[in-house]
Amino acid sequence: MLGLELQNLLKVLGRLPGLGPRSGRRLALHLLKDKEKCLVPLLRVMEEAYRQVRVCEVCGNLDTAPQCGICRDESRQMGLLCVVADVEDLWALERTGTYKGRYHVLGGVLSAFHRVEPKDIRIDALCQRLQEKTETVEIILALNATVEGQTTAHFIQDKIAPFFRGRLTRLAYGVPLGGELDYLDDGTLGAAFKARVELS
Amino acid sequence: MLGLELQNLLKVLGRLPGLGPRSGRRLALHLLKDKEKCLVPLLRVMEEAYRQVRVCEVCGNLDTAPQCGICRDESRQMGLLCVVADVEDLWALERTGTYKGRYHVLGGVLSAFHRVEPKDIRIDALCQRLQEKTETVEIILALNATVEGQTTAHFIQDKIAPFFRGRLTRLAYGVPLGGELDYLDDGTLGAAFKARVELS
Repeated sequence: MLGLELQNLLKVLGRLPGLGPRSGRRLALHLLKDKEKCLVPLLRVMEEAYRQVRVCEVCGNLDTAPQCGICRDESRQMGLLCVVADVEDLWALERTGTYKGRYHVLGGVLSAFHRVEPKDIRIDALCQRLQEKTETVEIILALNATVEGQTTAHFIQDKIAPFFRGRLTRLAYGVPLGGELDYLDDGTLGAAFKARVELS
Repeated sequence: MLGLELQNLLKVLGRLPGLGPRSGRRLALHLLKDKEKCLVPLLRVMEEAYRQVRVCEVCGNLDTAPQCGICRDESRQMGLLCVVADVEDLWALERTGTYKGRYHVLGGVLSAFHRVEPKDIRIDALCQRLQEKTETVEIILALNATVEGQTTAHFIQDKIAPFFRGRLTRLAYGVPLGGELDYLDDGTLGAAFKARVELS
């Protein structure tokens, strides 16, 4: 009964990550009920993003210049390079305000299940970057604490071993802040116990 | 650190119904990671919907013609008119396939809290429609079983009483299919008990 344009809108919206047929429908109606106030601003920012946003040619972050704001920022520590799987991880680390070095976004992790091989993610670009700019003193592998994240970390470790002489680190495992031990999985609790820290 | 275009996209996406800052971010990255495959189709269907979709001048449904497919459909029962609050309710009823009459979409319900008055919803249009087309034999008030929905139903009932001589009905209250009595609220259970039906 619905017009083709409406059906298409519902179909595309309902397939977006985090949305389903029901929330897609709700979103479509929200957008269409006041097109000028809801649909037009969204269209505008999306068109703008389509035209402007690009992948940083150095690190793989998203920004509007050929090199992203972080890569261009001279005040950041040149010696530190943090390897992340995806742009969302980079943004999450930036929100913490803890880290002031540079990044390298792999664009995924190795996965037999999803058929992601080393050539599919930016590991060669990482090696090239390390060999060209030799000022890096520490590489932080900030990958997910999952099998796939850790497989990728091991792969990178092996790959850069022949030529990288600096420190190679990973994020600490442990109890999340605000986390209750009772609800924590055994693996995390065990890791937190092993990595216990002296109270000074 | 993020470009203005990205910030705007995140802001607009994060404010959409059903999305928050986190899911908005996730959606933005999904769209931007493969612009041609994800962002462009969405842009296209949204532009198409912006140009084509309009409110039906008769019933208030959304469609691409001045009169919606339901209003144009000669095979539907002219004598039945179902009053709903919003287009989503119309769509929900259409999905059941139970009803073959026409609709009238109010575009909201009366609400003291949200300051929605009779003039803000399409009650006058309903009265006019009933007075112009006198073939209506039954009006079904398919409004939410909430205080606001029922207030609106009562208001409409009073408003059309002087001139409407047909049947005026509402949806049945009762146990939802698949619902467990134990988890049902007292009001619903009481209503279902009162409206009990003879087993033939």
